[in-house]
Amino acid sequence: MSGRIQRTGIVEGNLVVGQSGGPTAVINQSLMGVIREARFHKDYIKKIYGMHNGIEGFLKEDIIDLGGKLPRELAEVASSPASGLGSCRKKPTEDDCKKIFEICRKLNVRYFFYIGGNDSALSAGIINRIAAANNYELRVFHVPKTIDNDLLVTDHCPGYGSAAKYVAQCFMGNDLDQRALPGIKIDVCMGRTAGWLTAASALARKHEGDGPHLIYVPERPKTLKEIVADISRIYKKYKRCLVAASEGICDKDGHEFLNSEHIRRELHEMGMQSVIKWMDAFGEMLKDAGRAEKDSFGHVQLSGTGALADMLACVVAAAMKRETGKAPRVRSDTLGYAQRSFAGIVSEVDSREALMVGEAAVKYSILGNIDGSVVLDRTGNGENYHVEPALASLDDVAGLKLVEKGKPNHKPLSDKFLNAEGNDVTPEFIEYAMPLVGTLPPKGLLRRGETLQK
Amino acid sequence: MSGRIQRTGIVEGNLVVGQSGGPTAVINQSLMGVIREARFHKDYIKKIYGMHNGIEGFLKEDIIDLGGKLPRELAEVASSPASGLGSCRKKPTEDDCKKIFEICRKLNVRYFFYIGGNDSALSAGIINRIAAANNYELRVFHVPKTIDNDLLVTDHCPGYGSAAKYVAQCFMGNDLDQRALPGIKIDVCMGRTAGWLTAASALARKHEGDGPHLIYVPERPKTLKEIVADISRIYKKYKRCLVAASEGICDKDGHEFLNSEHIRRELHEMGMQSVIKWMDAFGEMLKDAGRAEKDSFGHVQLSGTGALADMLACVVAAAMKRETGKAPRVRSDTLGYAQRSFAGIVSEVDSREALMVGEAAVKYSILGNIDGSVVLDRTGNGENYHVEPALASLDDVAGLKLVEKGKPNHKPLSDKFLNAEGNDVTPEFIEYAMPLVGTLPPKGLLRRGETLQK
Repeated sequence: MSGRIQRTGIVEGNLVVGQSGGPTAVINQSLMGVIREARFHKDYIKKIYGMHNGIEGFLKEDIIDLGGKLPRELAEVASSPASGLGSCRKKPTEDDCKKIFEICRKLNVRYFFYIGGNDSALSAGIINRIAAANNYELRVFHVPKTIDNDLLVTDHCPGYGSAAKYVAQCFMGNDLDQRALPGIKIDVCMGRTAGWLTAASALARKHEGDGPHLIYVPERPKTLKEIVADISRIYKKYKRCLVAASEGICDKDGHEFLNSEHIRRELHEMGMQSVIKWMDAFGEMLKDAGRAEKDSFGHVQLSGTGALADMLACVVAAAMKRETGKAPRVRSDTLGYAQRSFAGIVSEVDSREALMVGEAAVKYSILGNIDGSVVLDRTGNGENYHVEPALASLDDVAGLKLVEKGKPNHKPLSDKFLNAEGNDVTPEFIEYAMPLVGTLPPKGLLRRGETLQK
Repeated sequence: MSGRIQRTGIVEGNLVVGQSGGPTAVINQSLMGVIREARFHKDYIKKIYGMHNGIEGFLKEDIIDLGGKLPRELAEVASSPASGLGSCRKKPTEDDCKKIFEICRKLNVRYFFYIGGNDSALSAGIINRIAAANNYELRVFHVPKTIDNDLLVTDHCPGYGSAAKYVAQCFMGNDLDQRALPGIKIDVCMGRTAGWLTAASALARKHEGDGPHLIYVPERPKTLKEIVADISRIYKKYKRCLVAASEGICDKDGHEFLNSEHIRRELHEMGMQSVIKWMDAFGEMLKDAGRAEKDSFGHVQLSGTGALADMLACVVAAAMKRETGKAPRVRSDTLGYAQRSFAGIVSEVDSREALMVGEAAVKYSILGNIDGSVVLDRTGNGENYHVEPALASLDDVAGLKLVEKGKPNHKPLSDKFLNAEGNDVTPEFIEYAMPLVGTLPPKGLLRRGETLQK
């Protein structure tokens, strides 16, 4: 793994750093890492600029001077969730990239750091090609972040550990809640294309019989009948069932449940016309409200509605009512934005690594690398868990070859992390994810012991 | 404030403790308090029994022997959310209460502790009247808990501080998230009849312009037009708007939004037939699924669906689209079960007080009181915050006189805690709630300072 290296000696000029895409709990640690490391290289790095709202702001030359920020202010921001510089969801056009380059030239920016997901890596690659074509020495680095944990090349992504910790603690509570008041509960987690975050719900298990009892992810297409059969089986065994489902769970054609003809056909076969009518009414309402939108990357925005959770709860209740004559107590929650920006739930490891990738990006730039994406190499597990930063090419992390072939450029959950039935994770996943999340709070269980009567 | 006192000397016998209603993060501290204190009185309190799943289990004589539990096991349970003994939502009939009394007599139970909300206090009162009529000396105590903070008499309720802390931290994150990616966001919080928990969102504010910018609670009826106008005004000012709304927000007749004829009429007048159709379709779907249920206290279960949040988001987007020609980015979340049982978010003060009320209940029983509910008396605020436990009558805490008149037996947010417009809390509320929540995590803001350009 290495970026393109062109040792032209160390270039002197200004630095700009920006943040892009959805927030994480530790994205400001990476920002802090860039600033703190840059201050060690005053001979080469002169001014330290921040883009206000990513490249969207940078294109308007909306720039913040970060050079004079006091360590205390920076430290407080670093410990706070969400992008301190502001963010954007803009995928720059070729023209935008040219303009970004022109602004860099105008401001004598020689060091360009973009903290974001794979689309940010893609943008960074384009900008640097334009700089190279103009014979302007620009160092362009991508600093990874995403709660989705789906970036290529890297072992895992800064931001994931903290989001996974939130999800694990949420499921710990939901599981104890359900032990106290039994029923069926379906929790929908973030993850449109990959199930990494949903899978982290498994970390909530501690005692025999603990939930989540079922985990559904986009990597394993499902039918409603399969899901209902799974839940029904668990419910018979434990008199309760806690389910984790990704918002992006899909049918065998890869279509999300709420946009799937297969699911509609199943609902029809199951005699659940009222669900179909509700889905149609939902679509009409969203359309009328101007909310049936897609972002500029083409993703349909599901994360703002509770539709999937409500649908699944009703289908499960209706199916089990038919099976047993009585609907069990079924509830659902859509975990929401708290997964990515809840204040106060931070994985220590994640926080440290987010800082490290920011610092490493600057170090690589000073070492003469002209571009690249900082990735995390895991060199040990369990008690020997250890990671080292490494440099990968922007195009590899962006998945440029996949994008050119029209294929998805994200990393799905590995096969080894999913069980044969496609409704749970394996012990290998727990081993992978646990060090990223770190210590979890107590989960005590009052053992029944001998009951007095009966 | 005092319970009925009948000094007959100290009675000797067994103890039973149970937990009822929705979980809280610290309800097991109260359980721990009862057990720990009871162990100090071995001369009088012989066996320590736990009801498995509250009175529902007790009626089946499903009882756990708590006497031999090791401190370590108890401590771990005490630090975990949700009812360690299991819970129930059963409101006992007069016959149930007679049976409960018979079981007490059979097991020589002389000390009866029920940790729960106002319905638990009501049940406890009935049981003790039966015991008295049978000339059986039973000490019956209610130990308060509820995230809703709506019990009568007491200054505040164990369980509220931790839930309020969760809500505050959630809004801190949501606010920073929205600063990074501006738009409109509506977060629906638990609270069917009282807005205490929703009001706690205000604790998330730290900097000028911080959200939540609007807070809607059941105590202040609203129309959709008022809400849309509020949001539109804030959005013009800050280019963003974060809203906290109780699940129980209602119209002027006290009907919840999703069951309100006024709201339907408004939607009709606003030309939002698609929302009405969706509401109807939702009702049909819930009915088909057997989920259009009420619990045995007569509350309609809203907390399991995301309907209110989805509806509000669509109405606001549609209305603003008409006003400005373009729908702003509107999102909504329904905060869900995490509010009551998230593992790892605990207010230290809340935890300590929950333990204290459990201990105090046993102490009062040993002092010769025959029944009562332990309440919290606040004797200082701010840095001088201090509470003392006190004993109130079961009937006062249960609001028996109100129930007999057919009136609600919960404590609404005081008028002094709500602003004149009915869309925010006052500084008095912050002063009231802050000590209950305790320290909040950092919320750093990168000040713009001088921008370089423009």
